[in-house]
Amino acid sequence: MKKLNVGIIGYGFMGRAHSNAYRKVANFFDLQYEPVLKAACARDAKKVKAFADKWGYQSIETDWRKLIERKDIDIIDICTPNNTHAEIANAAAHAGKMILCEKPLSMDGPEGEKMVKVVEKANVPNMVWYNYRRTPAVTLAKQLIDEGRLGRIFHYRAKFLQDWTINPDLPQGGAGLWRLDVKAAGSGVTGDLLAHCIDTAIWLNGTIDQVSAMTETFVKKRMHNLTGKVTNVGIDDACAFLGRFTNGSLATFESTRYARGHKALYTFEINGEHASIFWDLHDLHRLQYFDHKDDSVVRGWRSIHVSDGDQPYMKNWWVPGLQIGYEHTFVHQVADFLQGVAKDKWAGPAFRDALETQYVCDAVLSSAKNDRWQKVKHAYK
Amino acid sequence: MKKLNVGIIGYGFMGRAHSNAYRKVANFFDLQYEPVLKAACARDAKKVKAFADKWGYQSIETDWRKLIERKDIDIIDICTPNNTHAEIANAAAHAGKMILCEKPLSMDGPEGEKMVKVVEKANVPNMVWYNYRRTPAVTLAKQLIDEGRLGRIFHYRAKFLQDWTINPDLPQGGAGLWRLDVKAAGSGVTGDLLAHCIDTAIWLNGTIDQVSAMTETFVKKRMHNLTGKVTNVGIDDACAFLGRFTNGSLATFESTRYARGHKALYTFEINGEHASIFWDLHDLHRLQYFDHKDDSVVRGWRSIHVSDGDQPYMKNWWVPGLQIGYEHTFVHQVADFLQGVAKDKWAGPAFRDALETQYVCDAVLSSAKNDRWQKVKHAYK
Amino acid sequence: MKKLNVGIIGYGFMGRAHSNAYRKVANFFDLQYEPVLKAACARDAKKVKAFADKWGYQSIETDWRKLIERKDIDIIDICTPNNTHAEIANAAAHAGKMILCEKPLSMDGPEGEKMVKVVEKANVPNMVWYNYRRTPAVTLAKQLIDEGRLGRIFHYRAKFLQDWTINPDLPQGGAGLWRLDVKAAGSGVTGDLLAHCIDTAIWLNGTIDQVSAMTETFVKKRMHNLTGKVTNVGIDDACAFLGRFTNGSLATFESTRYARGHKALYTFEINGEHASIFWDLHDLHRLQYFDHKDDSVVRGWRSIHVSDGDQPYMKNWWVPGLQIGYEHTFVHQVADFLQGVAKDKWAGPAFRDALETQYVCDAVLSSAKNDRWQKVKHAYK
Amino acid sequence: MKKLNVGIIGYGFMGRAHSNAYRKVANFFDLQYEPVLKAACARDAKKVKAFADKWGYQSIETDWRKLIERKDIDIIDICTPNNTHAEIANAAAHAGKMILCEKPLSMDGPEGEKMVKVVEKANVPNMVWYNYRRTPAVTLAKQLIDEGRLGRIFHYRAKFLQDWTINPDLPQGGAGLWRLDVKAAGSGVTGDLLAHCIDTAIWLNGTIDQVSAMTETFVKKRMHNLTGKVTNVGIDDACAFLGRFTNGSLATFESTRYARGHKALYTFEINGEHASIFWDLHDLHRLQYFDHKDDSVVRGWRSIHVSDGDQPYMKNWWVPGLQIGYEHTFVHQVADFLQGVAKDKWAGPAFRDALETQYVCDAVLSSAKNDRWQKVKHAYK
Repeated sequence: MKKLNVGIIGYGFMGRAHSNAYRKVANFFDLQYEPVLKAACARDAKKVKAFADKWGYQSIETDWRKLIERKDIDIIDICTPNNTHAEIANAAAHAGKMILCEKPLSMDGPEGEKMVKVVEKANVPNMVWYNYRRTPAVTLAKQLIDEGRLGRIFHYRAKFLQDWTINPDLPQGGAGLWRLDVKAAGSGVTGDLLAHCIDTAIWLNGTIDQVSAMTETFVKKRMHNLTGKVTNVGIDDACAFLGRFTNGSLATFESTRYARGHKALYTFEINGEHASIFWDLHDLHRLQYFDHKDDSVVRGWRSIHVSDGDQPYMKNWWVPGLQIGYEHTFVHQVADFLQGVAKDKWAGPAFRDALETQYVCDAVLSSAKNDRWQKVKHAYK
Repeated sequence: MKKLNVGIIGYGFMGRAHSNAYRKVANFFDLQYEPVLKAACARDAKKVKAFADKWGYQSIETDWRKLIERKDIDIIDICTPNNTHAEIANAAAHAGKMILCEKPLSMDGPEGEKMVKVVEKANVPNMVWYNYRRTPAVTLAKQLIDEGRLGRIFHYRAKFLQDWTINPDLPQGGAGLWRLDVKAAGSGVTGDLLAHCIDTAIWLNGTIDQVSAMTETFVKKRMHNLTGKVTNVGIDDACAFLGRFTNGSLATFESTRYARGHKALYTFEINGEHASIFWDLHDLHRLQYFDHKDDSVVRGWRSIHVSDGDQPYMKNWWVPGLQIGYEHTFVHQVADFLQGVAKDKWAGPAFRDALETQYVCDAVLSSAKNDRWQKVKHAYK
Repeated sequence: MKKLNVGIIGYGFMGRAHSNAYRKVANFFDLQYEPVLKAACARDAKKVKAFADKWGYQSIETDWRKLIERKDIDIIDICTPNNTHAEIANAAAHAGKMILCEKPLSMDGPEGEKMVKVVEKANVPNMVWYNYRRTPAVTLAKQLIDEGRLGRIFHYRAKFLQDWTINPDLPQGGAGLWRLDVKAAGSGVTGDLLAHCIDTAIWLNGTIDQVSAMTETFVKKRMHNLTGKVTNVGIDDACAFLGRFTNGSLATFESTRYARGHKALYTFEINGEHASIFWDLHDLHRLQYFDHKDDSVVRGWRSIHVSDGDQPYMKNWWVPGLQIGYEHTFVHQVADFLQGVAKDKWAGPAFRDALETQYVCDAVLSSAKNDRWQKVKHAYK
Repeated sequence: MKKLNVGIIGYGFMGRAHSNAYRKVANFFDLQYEPVLKAACARDAKKVKAFADKWGYQSIETDWRKLIERKDIDIIDICTPNNTHAEIANAAAHAGKMILCEKPLSMDGPEGEKMVKVVEKANVPNMVWYNYRRTPAVTLAKQLIDEGRLGRIFHYRAKFLQDWTINPDLPQGGAGLWRLDVKAAGSGVTGDLLAHCIDTAIWLNGTIDQVSAMTETFVKKRMHNLTGKVTNVGIDDACAFLGRFTNGSLATFESTRYARGHKALYTFEINGEHASIFWDLHDLHRLQYFDHKDDSVVRGWRSIHVSDGDQPYMKNWWVPGLQIGYEHTFVHQVADFLQGVAKDKWAGPAFRDALETQYVCDAVLSSAKNDRWQKVKHAYK
């Protein structure tokens, strides 16, 4: 088995999730390439050392430019706040590294466009961590749609509901809370949560042409974690939009961090002429499926426990009935990435796919700002 | 439409449920016979008058023997405590009345045997109010089984769980509480709740040959409502049994009034070679169905919302998606009874069917008392 | 008990639902006024006679003007298509009758305004059949909100999803299908389904100030049932809108008849600072409730089986655990109407309440037509 | 961090589950001891080499006696069929190794008794892999019970339902199918599945004193995988039992591999005076909880998504709302084992705990064979 050396930048929540994936993938999947935890990089030497020890990284760096310069690094994995993705990715591409970048791709579409140009010119494998595509139930949904089981699509609706920022005493910004700081994050729930919903939607149902959105910031001022000052909150606490897909189906999307009772309730439903599908991150190992072709007296929504060997990715895990969890989506993404490299047929979502999502986010934020319908620019030719 | 005059005895919970059914049935079903609320009977003249006024009974009686003597009464409906069923039913049969008797049929098998003999000799239409058979979802289950969709049956399990007697201060006996008085009720949960489970089971899966049971009385002494004295509780608070059906499948049954959190959770599940069925009284308008013949990747339990016109009884009610409730099971039973009379093909469960259930109850109580497996006597030849 | 004579106009689906309510209400509720099924009215004498016989109406009329002229009629119940409500209601008000009108109130806001003026000038009890308010679980939601359990409200989302018009061969217009004919119905799902969602929303969460909507007609042409000709479909098959409530919370609403797998899935969810509520018409006897004040380790959505005597309306029905169904919402509405008349404190929703809903529908349709945000006119001063 | 060298025997399903746990535990838990994958042992050198390579074991052995003799091995992990546990465990104890043994402990109680004596005399840390105790939701149940939230317990019911052996063409015995071979497994569902249910039950609700059981073998003959001959099936396909716990509560247990539609549906429910708990392996990240102390109008079963940092084990994983899966129960067991060794306070279930479960299994099988109630021998003094 050939080795691919990973250099990871950032040791936060995503740093752990990715590291776990690299460590596990070869235990469960048959691969031609094996990832090696070569180097971890962050500004704080002590913290990054502790992280590297915990996960078995062989070395550390405190300057990501040095990491990129290293000859022994094949893959750069970017797990830093959104406002740093472009600079790092561009440098990595110039250095000819493979790139795995956290989502969202960029702060906005124009920035993302440049990143796409750079990686495509460099012709390096590139991928963005929209991990939910690789939930077995979601991948199964994709299969069912591709098989034509749903027929013409009428409706696609998605929600991503959380409640962790209701407390007005929660500060904004700083380590662990940069998602509340518009300068680091670019936007609030739109880039953090809706971006996931949009990526899945485009993958399952094609592109979106136009949107009408509204956003809201319920808590207008918060203390900033780093300065201790109370300042205006720049992010969107909630965002909802209507839209029209290119295939004629209707889109209704909503995300918030103020939905009491929901921790990370990402759901989507797609209604087709013949069948419908529903999925829910809180029970990610299940897919709900309704097939109108069933005998009429016994028609009903099927609750499919996606844990059998003939269902996506599941032959690599345990036995029927034994569920996997959140972290496995990252393992699947690494497996597909490595297999794509081996076959020279790179797995998505590529930077360009993520740019399409970015354009939808831009249109959503623009529509909400201007109170009008907004056309969506397309990344695909 | 021909008229059939109903004389009802008892005005308690079941008196209301049956009266409602008589009043509604002709609004929703096309019938050759229409029930007329002719007379209500109970010992307390004032109370039975109020009941008759509430429901539109044309007259009252305070002596059930007089009611049975009346020429203008066609149907005697027995809604009195269990220890009075036999005497009333026998008298009604001798008088040539049609009889609808509340469940359980009798205090025990020997008493029930005599009742069966009397009604069969009198050759009068006779039925016992095991109403849950007529829940549309349960009737649908019967259809699916009769169509052979389940194949060979391996398992049948049923539970009827309540929690209303946990409070030790609840008195036993007296109006509204006679179900806690062994002299009036004959037994506790066995005759009150398990009898329902057994009736459905025999209907769906055939007779039971042998049982091993245990019973328990958690609160040993309670104040008696009528005397004010604290006396030993004679009923079973909980009962569970194992058994073997004649068709070779295994039975597991349980009932209790000490299952905190369950109001009236009657559930049954039946596992066959090809398919399985689950039903739950708390959501009685749904049937859960698993069909192994579905494509393997999309197999799952279907939650069937039984409210379509091609599902049992439902064309008589509203439109798809709009559910019915508990009381409708009685309306269906009256409709089937009347249609049975019209076609001279009486609908079940007849007294004989209820006797089969009684024999299982007897065997269960005997097994629990003697701590050993007990064979079940059969009512069917 | 005093009598109030009902004259009903129309014998369709709603004619049955209302008649059932009038027949049952006095059996289950203690009332000062009892409704009497006095007369049924429709143009087809034979059909209305059959209907009157089925339900026990004492007489029939074939001209609604004659019905209104009758001195022995106290209440006019309007169950006819939407385009006839105004004329009948206005005439009934002039004649001093109490009026119960099917929803939606009118074809549009301006028509509804006149109706409100007329009934308020006539000072007659007036009510619109937005029956879902009286689902016990929904009334319980109202109680919880009024008690302040939710705190500040952030989000309100509602959907009403059906799938019965997906088949393009379904004709438009004519008996039973007038809801597909824009001339009779005024609109499609907006007036038929969203109007229900909006009525509940205003009741629970106050008025809506502005909306951005989209509508779609998936099947553009259908055969007209009466003429046999294929003509353009004028109604909206689907409608979704974003909005802002006066209290600052965000609204997301959607309705369609193209959501495969859903028969009549009316759901709403309301997220407050302290608690959230979810309800679903397909299991109307349950309320989902999340209370953040619960101990953190055992916090979770509670599935409340609304069937206890201390829950709204339920002491009038059966015992805990035994559910009611769709039709009972109408019984509750009649009970409240009659009690309101007795106390001279009329129960809502009055015509004015229904006008507020109508204004939202108007704004929604206007927004969808013009692709822009639309302010909502208010019926309340 | 100190190292503990693991020698694992067997590379089947459990070999993988344990290896994964050893590899992951130090990434997610703060530990004083770190497990090292030192040696893998099995008779087939080629296969065990492949396994060792896949998981990173540093060496292999083909004779478990040699493995036990090695000075560099601290822990022996026994993942072989049931009929080999005793001999290996006894040898490992004599050699002073720590022992982690797959469940069930032994072929029967007498064999288990000897194993307990040996390990207790050797005074080595010993544990049995009843992993479901360490599902966070199950551990939370334990906490709630220990806090007294349930009060007096009335009922405990458990089921473990599968459907994978319905096909009569499935052979018995041989690699991967030794669970169908009575000589290797000792029993069928009783030792394989009910043993899990019993272990959890004793942990949560104390010991069981007496049982009445029935067993069934639905497919009487199967081809033996190794010989190719059709022989009698010696295992129990299904087993159900009634019982009485020492604390006075009633037990109902059932297990089968013939419940169509269930892959690995291990469920338990416990009903106490004040509260009830339900858990389900198919959605293992949830706990259902009913608390009678909630306000009566909002009482309901709570669906707790066990993924918050203050819930058992979960602070070590991701963020609220992101679920873990089956394999994590093994990681938790290793973490607790290592922490127990560090504190010299060994974590359970010890061999003695597993012996108590074995005695219940013995009583169950004996009761089923003799058709009578059977007292349970106790391992605890």
